[in-house]
Amino acid sequence: MRMITLDEVASLLQENDDFKLLTHIYPDGDTLGGAFALAFALRKLGKRANVAVNGPVPSKFRYLTKNYRDQEFEPRYIVSVDVAAMTLLGDSVMEGVDKIDLCIDHHRTNSVAADHVYVDSSAAAACETIWQLVEMLGVELDEDIAGGIYTGVSTDTGCFCYTNTTPRTHEIAAKIIPFCDWREINYINFVVKTRAKIKMERMIYDTMEFYAGGKCAIVYTTIAMQQALGAGDDEMEGLANIPRQVEGVEMGITMREKEGGVFKISVRTNDGINAAEFCKQFGGGGHPGAAGCSIEGDLGTAKKLLIDAAEAFL
Amino acid sequence: MRMITLDEVASLLQENDDFKLLTHIYPDGDTLGGAFALAFALRKLGKRANVAVNGPVPSKFRYLTKNYRDQEFEPRYIVSVDVAAMTLLGDSVMEGVDKIDLCIDHHRTNSVAADHVYVDSSAAAACETIWQLVEMLGVELDEDIAGGIYTGVSTDTGCFCYTNTTPRTHEIAAKIIPFCDWREINYINFVVKTRAKIKMERMIYDTMEFYAGGKCAIVYTTIAMQQALGAGDDEMEGLANIPRQVEGVEMGITMREKEGGVFKISVRTNDGINAAEFCKQFGGGGHPGAAGCSIEGDLGTAKKLLIDAAEAFL
Repeated sequence: MRMITLDEVASLLQENDDFKLLTHIYPDGDTLGGAFALAFALRKLGKRANVAVNGPVPSKFRYLTKNYRDQEFEPRYIVSVDVAAMTLLGDSVMEGVDKIDLCIDHHRTNSVAADHVYVDSSAAAACETIWQLVEMLGVELDEDIAGGIYTGVSTDTGCFCYTNTTPRTHEIAAKIIPFCDWREINYINFVVKTRAKIKMERMIYDTMEFYAGGKCAIVYTTIAMQQALGAGDDEMEGLANIPRQVEGVEMGITMREKEGGVFKISVRTNDGINAAEFCKQFGGGGHPGAAGCSIEGDLGTAKKLLIDAAEAFL
Repeated sequence: MRMITLDEVASLLQENDDFKLLTHIYPDGDTLGGAFALAFALRKLGKRANVAVNGPVPSKFRYLTKNYRDQEFEPRYIVSVDVAAMTLLGDSVMEGVDKIDLCIDHHRTNSVAADHVYVDSSAAAACETIWQLVEMLGVELDEDIAGGIYTGVSTDTGCFCYTNTTPRTHEIAAKIIPFCDWREINYINFVVKTRAKIKMERMIYDTMEFYAGGKCAIVYTTIAMQQALGAGDDEMEGLANIPRQVEGVEMGITMREKEGGVFKISVRTNDGINAAEFCKQFGGGGHPGAAGCSIEGDLGTAKKLLIDAAEAFL
C-alpha cells in the first residue's frame, strides 16, 4: 500500500483500462456522484468503466444513471470512491474483486487496503478530487460528469452550508453548474420531502429531550415508528441534523433503531465539541462535527448510556 | 432619473462623501449585509457613511454591527441598497431625506425614484453588486465587509440552494469566505431555530391542505397561534418555504394573519408556474418562483379566494 499524489492518481487512470469503480454501502450522493462522474469521464477517454453499487441506486439518485448502461468486459483495474473502510464495501460490490488497485477518498480515518491510496481530507467531498482529476485528464465537462460532481459536492456540504465547505468547494460549483441541471438536483436533495418524511420529522420532535442544561438534545426513531408511517430509508435521511438545530443545543444525538436490537447513533456537534471523540467511547468514529456509533440494547438502556456519557462529556 | 452602469456607480461613490445608506422595511440579510458592507468599505476609503435601518437591527443580524458605530455628520449623498420600491422605505429611514441620489438593487421590478439607478436583475442578491463595487473601488476585504456580503448572498439564495444562484454567486463566496466567520453566519441563518420556531413549524403542518390534485398546498398562521407560542417575527421567517417542500406540490401558499384583518400571502412555485402572475390577481407581485400579496378578510374567505384562484391557475 502506498499513499500517492494527485498527479500519480491521474497517471494511473490514464495508464489503465477496464475499470470497476466501487461505491460504499448505504450509497450517498458523494460515492455515487463521484463514481458515476469518474466512469463517464473515463469512457470519454475511450476507456471502459463500470460502477458497482450495493443494491439498486436509490431512487432519488436515479438521475445520475440517466445515460449510464453497464458495459461488457472483465474488470482489470479496481478503484474505490469515497469508501473509508473495507467494512463499507458490500458483498455484491466485492464480487470477483481480489484486491483494490486504487482508493480515492476524503475521510481522514481512511483504512482501505488498496495498492495505491489518495486521501485528501481537506476536501469536503470525494467529488472535489474527482473534479480535479477530470480537469487534469482534460475531459470536457458534460451534464453527466458535472451532475455527478455537483451531487457529491452539494450533498456532502448540505448545499454549501456545513463547516467542511471551503473556497475550493464554491470554485468547483461555479465551474460546473453551467453544465448540469443543479436546480433539479437541489430540488431533489434539499427541497422536496415525501409526506412520510414530513410525518417522521414531526414524530421525532415528540421524542426530543434535553440534558446538560439544554446543551444536549436527544431524539430517537424506532422500527415501529418507521413502520407506522411507511417510512423507508429515504425518509430517515437527514434526521440526524434535527436535534442540533435547537437554540442552545451544542450536541445533538439521534438514535435510530435497526433490526437485531441495535441502535445506530448519529452525533452532531458545534465547534469545540468533538463528536468523533464522543463516539469513540462506543467504538465509533467520524469527523469532529459529525460522527456515529452503534449501541446494542433496548431503547431505555441505550439512551441512558448516551445521556450519562453526554453529561460527562459536556 | 437615469439608469447607469456599474462603472458610473463606482465613480459616484468615489466622487461623493457623507453617505446615508438606506435599507428596506422588514430588513433582511441582503439589505443589511449590503448596506453595512458598503458603509465599512466607504469608511475604509476615508469617507463618512452611516446606515439607516427602520427600527433596531434584528437580533440575528447584530453580528453585522459588531464594529459599527454611527458617525456624526450631515448626510450629503443618499444611497438605497436592495430597496425595490419607495413604499419599502420606512419613515424613520427617510427622516431628513429630500431625494435619493443613487439606488443599488437587483429587483427586476425596481421603481425607486432616485437620480441614478443601477439594477442588476441577474444578481441573486444586491450584495453581488456590493462585492463588485468593493473590488472596483480597490477596498481590501475584511471581516465586516466580507461578513456583510456573505450574509446577503447566502440569505438571498437559501445558502446557494435557490434557483437564483449563479456561477458568480459561488465565485463571490469562494473569494470572501476566507475573510469572515461564515460558519457562524450559516449557523445563525440556516441551522439554529428557537423552540418557539420549531413549535410554529409543527403547528403550521397541522393546517396544511391540498388542492388541485395535490399540486397546491396551503397553510396558515393566525395571530392567536403566534401568541400561543410566543413567536416573534424571527420565528415567522422561512415558513413560506414549507408547503412547496411536500412531494408533488408545485405551488405552496402560506397565509399569515397580520393585525387589522389582513392576511399576508406568500406564494412559492416550481419552474413553469409564475408566482408573480398569480399574485398580480390580488394586487401583489414578486419573482416568478417567489411572490406575495395581501388579502383582507377572515381566514375562511381569504382561503377560499386563494384556493379558487389556485385551482383555476394550475
